[in-house]
This record gives sequence, C-alpha cells and structure tokens, in this order.
Amino acid sequence: MRKVLVVGTGGLGSIVAFALSYTAKSYVAVVVRSDYEKVKNVGWEINSCDYGHIKGWKPDAIYPSIEEAAKNDKYDYVVVTTKNIPEVTKVEEIIEPVVTKGFTAIVLIQNGFDLGKPFLQKYPDNYCLSGVSYIGSSNHSGVINHTKDDDIIISYFNNKTFTKEQQREKCKEFVDLYKNDCNKARFEDDVKVCRYGKLLWNATYNTICALTRLDTGRLELSGTFEALAVPAMRELIKVARADGVEFPPDIINTTSHICGDLYYKPSMLLDVERGNPMELEIILGNVLKVSQELKVETPILNVLYHLLKGIQFKILEDCGLVEVPKVRPDLNKFYS
Amino acid sequence: MRKVLVVGTGGLGSIVAFALSYTAKSYVAVVVRSDYEKVKNVGWEINSCDYGHIKGWKPDAIYPSIEEAAKNDKYDYVVVTTKNIPEVTKVEEIIEPVVTKGFTAIVLIQNGFDLGKPFLQKYPDNYCLSGVSYIGSSNHSGVINHTKDDDIIISYFNNKTFTKEQQREKCKEFVDLYKNDCNKARFEDDVKVCRYGKLLWNATYNTICALTRLDTGRLELSGTFEALAVPAMRELIKVARADGVEFPPDIINTTSHICGDLYYKPSMLLDVERGNPMELEIILGNVLKVSQELKVETPILNVLYHLLKGIQFKILEDCGLVEVPKVRPDLNKFYS
Repeated sequence: MRKVLVVGTGGLGSIVAFALSYTAKSYVAVVVRSDYEKVKNVGWEINSCDYGHIKGWKPDAIYPSIEEAAKNDKYDYVVVTTKNIPEVTKVEEIIEPVVTKGFTAIVLIQNGFDLGKPFLQKYPDNYCLSGVSYIGSSNHSGVINHTKDDDIIISYFNNKTFTKEQQREKCKEFVDLYKNDCNKARFEDDVKVCRYGKLLWNATYNTICALTRLDTGRLELSGTFEALAVPAMRELIKVARADGVEFPPDIINTTSHICGDLYYKPSMLLDVERGNPMELEIILGNVLKVSQELKVETPILNVLYHLLKGIQFKILEDCGLVEVPKVRPDLNKFYS
Repeated sequence: MRKVLVVGTGGLGSIVAFALSYTAKSYVAVVVRSDYEKVKNVGWEINSCDYGHIKGWKPDAIYPSIEEAAKNDKYDYVVVTTKNIPEVTKVEEIIEPVVTKGFTAIVLIQNGFDLGKPFLQKYPDNYCLSGVSYIGSSNHSGVINHTKDDDIIISYFNNKTFTKEQQREKCKEFVDLYKNDCNKARFEDDVKVCRYGKLLWNATYNTICALTRLDTGRLELSGTFEALAVPAMRELIKVARADGVEFPPDIINTTSHICGDLYYKPSMLLDVERGNPMELEIILGNVLKVSQELKVETPILNVLYHLLKGIQFKILEDCGLVEVPKVRPDLNKFYS
C-alpha cells in the first residue's frame, strides 16, 4: 500500500487527507502544527458538501512536525498543501527530511504559477506533481467547513530525468489513490493549461481585491473591475499565448462570472485584512518573470505587483520578519 | 479695509486667517464648524513655528455657517481652505451665499489640479485665485500645531472676463494683505507651473503611500518608490511638458528628497487610515483628464487612479454616501 504524507492541514489539506483516506487505497499520515493536540486527541470535525458531517476523524498517523514524520516512515508521496510564501518559508527546504531521493513523489497542491522550479532543482531524481484545486474549504481550529466541491486537476512539472510517459503514469496513480465518488479529481497533461487557467482569476481578482480592500461584488459595482481587472486579464491572456497556452475566446466573461452573486473575499484580501503575508510571488511575481522572458508587456500587472510588494513589506515588518531602522537611512540614491 | 472670509479652519485655514489678521490690513471673518462653540468662547490656541505660542486668539468675526457669514457682511475675498472632494461636496455650490457677483474674489488655497474650472463656470464675473501652500499644520479641536513654514504661492485661474493684468493686480493685492515678516507668500504668474510643481509629489507619493499604506520612508526602503513612484513622476513630467510646463532636469531627485529623513505619512494615507474620503479627483483624476486631452500616455497613473477609485468607493460606503445592494446585482455585463 502506498504511503502518503500530507503537509499542511488547513481547509484544503484536511479535505485532501480525508479524500485519500476515504478511498482507502493508501496509508495516510499528516503533519499538523497548531491543532496537533486537539486533532491527536479528538480528531477533526468535518462539515462537508461532499462527505456530509463527520466527527472525530483521524488519518492513519498524525505528526506534530516534518521531523517526526520522517523518523517514523518513508513516503511514496509527500503532498504539500501549505500556503506558498517564499519570502517567509522555502517549502522545498522544509520538506527535505521526508523526501527520499529517487523514491518520493512530491505533489504541490498550491496556488500560483511556476512553483515547481525550486523543487525540480533541489530534487532532480523525484517526480514533482502539480495539483490545481478549486475547492472551497476553511479550517477553524480543527473544525473544517468544506463548502465548495473538491475539484482538483493533477498534472506534472516536467522533470527531464523522467519520460513524459513515466510522469503521466505517476499522475494517474495519484489520481487513482485520490479519486472517489464524491470528488472530481482528474489528470491533465499540460500543467501550464491548468496553472494559467486558475491564474487568470488569481492574478487579477485576488490582487486587485487585496489592493482596493473590496470583495468581488464591490469591485464590480465600483467600476474598478471593468477598468482594471478586465484589461489585466487581457495582459495575462497575451502572456499565456506567448507561452503556448490559448484560452477559449469567452474566457474573460466566464472568469468574471465565476463568483456568481457572491460578495466574495479572495485569499489575498483576507490575508491583508488579517495582517498575514500574501502569496504574492507565486500568484503574480513568477508569471511576470515569464512575461519578461517572453517580452510580453504587462503594464497593469507590473503596477499591481509593485504595489503589493509595498503592502507585503509592511505585513512582513508587522510580523517581525523585516526590520526598519528607527532613523530613516539615506539610501544615497539619485533618482532621475 | 478689505473684508476677507476664510472658509475652512483646519490646520491650514486657521494659520491663513491668523496670517491675514497679523498683517492687520484686512477685516478677517471665519466660518468654523465643528469647533465653533469652543473658538467663539475661548479662541484658538496656536503653536506656530512662525508666530510662536498664542493663546485665545480670535479673528474679527466667527460664524458657524456660510449662511450666517452671508447675512452679516459682503466680502472682498472668500478664501477656501477646505478639503476638496467633489464626490462628497461641491465647494463652488457651498460658497454661493458669500460670493457677490462681480465683487468677491474667490481664493482656492487647496490641493490639486484644475480645481478652478467649476468656479470659473459658475462665477464668470468673479476673480478666481489659486493658492498653493507648502505649510505643515494640523488642528486638534481648536489647538493648532503649525510645524512647517507658511510658504504659499498665489496665482490665478485665468478668467477671460478679465485681462491678465487685472488678474495679476488682484493676486498682488491679496499677497499684500497676506504677506508678513513671518511667512513666505508670493505671486507667480503661471498657475500651471505652481500646480504641476506640487502635483509631482502629490500624484505620486500621496497616491502610492495611500495604496501601499506605507509612509515615505518605508516606500523607499521597500523598493516600491523606485519601481513605481519614479516612473509615475516621469509620466507626469511628460503631461506637464505637453501642457507647456517644463520642470528643471533634476526635479525627480529634488522631489524624492523633500521629506528628508522623515517617515512621513501623506494626507491620502492618513485619510485611508482614518476612513475619510480622499482628495482623489483633484490630486489625480483632473490631471488624467488633461493627459487624455493631450494624448499623453500615463499607464501607471491610470492604474493608481482606478485602484484608488475602488478604495474611495468603500470609504464612501462606510461613510453612508454610497449604498451597496444586499444581494449582489447582476450588472448584465459581457466582459470581453
């Protein structure tokens, strides 16, 4: 039986672990940090649109840290479902103890774009899979509110150590472990197609809502959606095209109506409101590096990025991760 | 003796009234709203870098409203020192009772650009003067903290009813009433030169600090100043050039070092922090209309403007000035 370790048990990670357990095709261990004592003792309470109401659920093993998980087992899959903020934590370094060279497949079920790169560099002998999830789920101290379908697309960040066929097989094996009668797990060959698809929403709605502090409904009512988010989507469509990914012609309209009649607050807005670091680099920074390489101009996305870098600077300072000198230093710069 | 009415007695307006009184060349009346009872009874307390410490100061007349001021006198000058937020208040309408056709000169000592337009339209038979002030002063319930020189440039918004010479004379008369041994009031013929000069700071620092919630020092330390504010200044310099105003070649560097070693919070940032509407239209909206007319591209300033419009929308909603439907309406828009 395959052994899977899930790292990160927020709203997404706990449902991922539950889905794998529910299928009962693998041994499921999890690393739980803040809720460890509670989950170890009484398990999770899950209110799920897919699985109904479950109380006291526990996976096969629960560890308080990566190091403990490493001591006890060797894993076929390490599934990462944490937030991805390289300014704060390098995920590729954190998981090192549980990645066995040439054995463990890494599965990144995380937001953003081009996030496989540091893993492919650090673990050239391991598969690196991509999971793009459209789930709606939140964790309130061990109580999971799963409100939107576990809709997940599995793909792979191409590792030249392996053939495409080998990587496809690995993806399909993971989908087989994961897919059950309640979720919508599926395989997609082209990782870029999945990643650009979600990015179109994330890099525009998520960023502009964070900057304006407006939910999706107010963003539209204020006129800022049409003035900025729509042209920002057009920029991203151009980057995708130059990168070999063509969106359907009505994609902007489809993306614009994803939230239906909700006044929905995207994750970066919630982060700003709560003073938490945002997933800025993987949601926006990485794709702007690609746009530069491909020489596609993205004037709106650039401004959004640098403004959010400013906001992130203050959040990191408030979290004690950046220090600002008491007396303002003279940077000795000449601006022209 | 000339009669002057000062409308708006915040940090700026109270020092303006005091400067006029100090010179003793005019009769000075003021309209005071929130602090009326206090100022009527005990006067202002002023801690001034120019005038020292003064307690219990009162001008010649104190009125609780424009209407009361209108009942009691006819004014040679109506000096407006209020904030200028057309989405909330049309200043040109508010002052109507105290403007005598063909007699009263209006003096707008306010932030921003192209703010004379609605006054010239509504009062074609009256002079409309411009005051660009570089003062630092704040009002805390009738106690004025005046920390930075009363440095003010008087000019005129060109009214074709009068000759340039007539308008110059009017400006010079007002400077004569205002200038004293403690302040730096002066006349400048070209209103655009003064307005663009202050705008270069306001349309870039002020807007970007409001969006990032960073003070001027952190804006520089975060890198966002160099990445965004400097190129935004370049855009504004191009607009000014197309509009006939040439800045000195080192203007960006000079403007960048205005705040010296301060971690300074500009007014729009303070407004955002306090939930007060921002002077967005006159600081940024008006100059963007000019850039469109002159066909000068301002991609960064456009993005800043639309993001701030979004923030303003929420501020106006929180102030009860915009209503958002409980159920998110379908705007029936097709975005392409």
